Amino acid sequence: MTAGDETPILRDVTTTEPLRRNVTPVKITAVHDGVRSERPDTLATEEPLEIRVEGPDGIAHQVAVTMRTPGGDYELSAGFLFTEGLLVPDHVRRVRYCDDVVDEEQRFNVVTVTLGVAFDAERLRRNFFATSSCGVCGKAALDDVEVRCAPVAEGTTVALPVLLGLPDALRGAQKVFDRTGGLHAAGLFTADGTAVSVREDVGRHNAVDKVIGEHVLDRTLPLAGHVLQVSGRLSFEIVQKAAVAGIAVVSAVSAPSSLAVEAAERFGMTLVGFVRGRRCNIYTRPDRVV
Amino acid sequence: MTAGDETPILRDVTTTEPLRRNVTPVKITAVHDGVRSERPDTLATEEPLEIRVEGPDGIAHQVAVTMRTPGGDYELSAGFLFTEGLLVPDHVRRVRYCDDVVDEEQRFNVVTVTLGVAFDAERLRRNFFATSSCGVCGKAALDDVEVRCAPVAEGTTVALPVLLGLPDALRGAQKVFDRTGGLHAAGLFTADGTAVSVREDVGRHNAVDKVIGEHVLDRTLPLAGHVLQVSGRLSFEIVQKAAVAGIAVVSAVSAPSSLAVEAAERFGMTLVGFVRGRRCNIYTRPDRVV
Repeated sequence: MTAGDETPILRDVTTTEPLRRNVTPVKITAVHDGVRSERPDTLATEEPLEIRVEGPDGIAHQVAVTMRTPGGDYELSAGFLFTEGLLVPDHVRRVRYCDDVVDEEQRFNVVTVTLGVAFDAERLRRNFFATSSCGVCGKAALDDVEVRCAPVAEGTTVALPVLLGLPDALRGAQKVFDRTGGLHAAGLFTADGTAVSVREDVGRHNAVDKVIGEHVLDRTLPLAGHVLQVSGRLSFEIVQKAAVAGIAVVSAVSAPSSLAVEAAERFGMTLVGFVRGRRCNIYTRPDRVV
Repeated sequence: MTAGDETPILRDVTTTEPLRRNVTPVKITAVHDGVRSERPDTLATEEPLEIRVEGPDGIAHQVAVTMRTPGGDYELSAGFLFTEGLLVPDHVRRVRYCDDVVDEEQRFNVVTVTLGVAFDAERLRRNFFATSSCGVCGKAALDDVEVRCAPVAEGTTVALPVLLGLPDALRGAQKVFDRTGGLHAAGLFTADGTAVSVREDVGRHNAVDKVIGEHVLDRTLPLAGHVLQVSGRLSFEIVQKAAVAGIAVVSAVSAPSSLAVEAAERFGMTLVGFVRGRRCNIYTRPDRVV
């Protein structure tokens, strides 16, 4: 729980429309052993989401457009803005879909987040770790994240059998995956392996933003004491987002990048990769795996 | 070959430094059946690349920072700028690493592309398909790409056995993958399955930009008559980039998203997914697979 504001965040009347659109039916030509057949198939839906922020003056600033799978759009917007350092969770007052629509299709592709304080549009420009002198490097990227990090809970540990069971637990909780094979998933688990939030998206980073954004809107940050399990690989971006939310253990079924490991090291996070069956590789802080 | 300018593009003295940095050695704790062992391991390197563009006036504009695997940085920069609609290939005069360095690590993380014409910095702002009225939708994203598309060559066909062999051919050509398991790959093949360009990166879109950028710098666009094979999934972004380069067939080992299929349909491209062994799914224009 972040300190201070306990006011509930106003979420405008939601609709099941975006969720209904998270898969799209198509007709395909399936080829097997040279034989063609036409058959119906289901795809993971990918649509742009425009994220806007406004202060008490009601002037909306267009902050980002991300390609995402509809559903969990409020969470995605709040999570993205928080993990990218563009808002403080306590300042969120309201999230809503666009109300000056031109057509129905666009209506659910714009989310506006209202803050209780003026939005610093200049921050958008500064939020770009390449401003100093000539160029960028991994160290500058890490420095940039460090100032926004929640402290990682030192006492957190996770039992090895729990950790090894997370990929199956995540897969079991994915609702859309089995129908499309096209979605990444991110799941937040307690240290004893209980699923707290599981989200899917065509973008791996979006799935993570949805998981974290849920806790921004519920005012249940930081997420110390939890484990984040992701499908696929671990990039710097994933570790960065987890670090901002104060998550102590991040785990994946595939390989991390060099900067993901460097970031985990810097932020005192436990990073685990290649979690497969009875084996895994621990890249940083192996002491938390007991 | 794009019409017009035949001047070779000046590539500043290259260095093998970025390529040498494409893997990073680390020490890990490997766990197998509950037994821990410390051992050396190799990660795919992830570092930021800052892309700048300057016109004849020599004033550099910071255009983007992308997290990428070092190596092929000139290609990545040229490919990114081209596929995002920020330059016309004919206008490229020179690509170079930064020369006003503060430290060696940063030196190879900045690429400047020099154009023979003034760079339209306003274009950067416009290059954001969410400018009109309230919001965005898949159709607006498609409209935006369409104006920059090279026509897809109608006569292109690819034999089914060639197509089914591309995942193995791509894997075989990946140099770094087997060492890290952490890289995406993109490969450009002729219609008879000969590899023309194969690139790897922690980012799927970067691997595609590197492949296309190579042909921007070699002045061998558009890429009609070729097949683009990618590891993993097919997002809108991949299809968009292929469409801008005039590629007629895009193929992947996993699922496409809904908007990837919609884009392929709009641009008359053949999109193939789940290419595995003796089977595959054709989503659009199956007539090109013979």
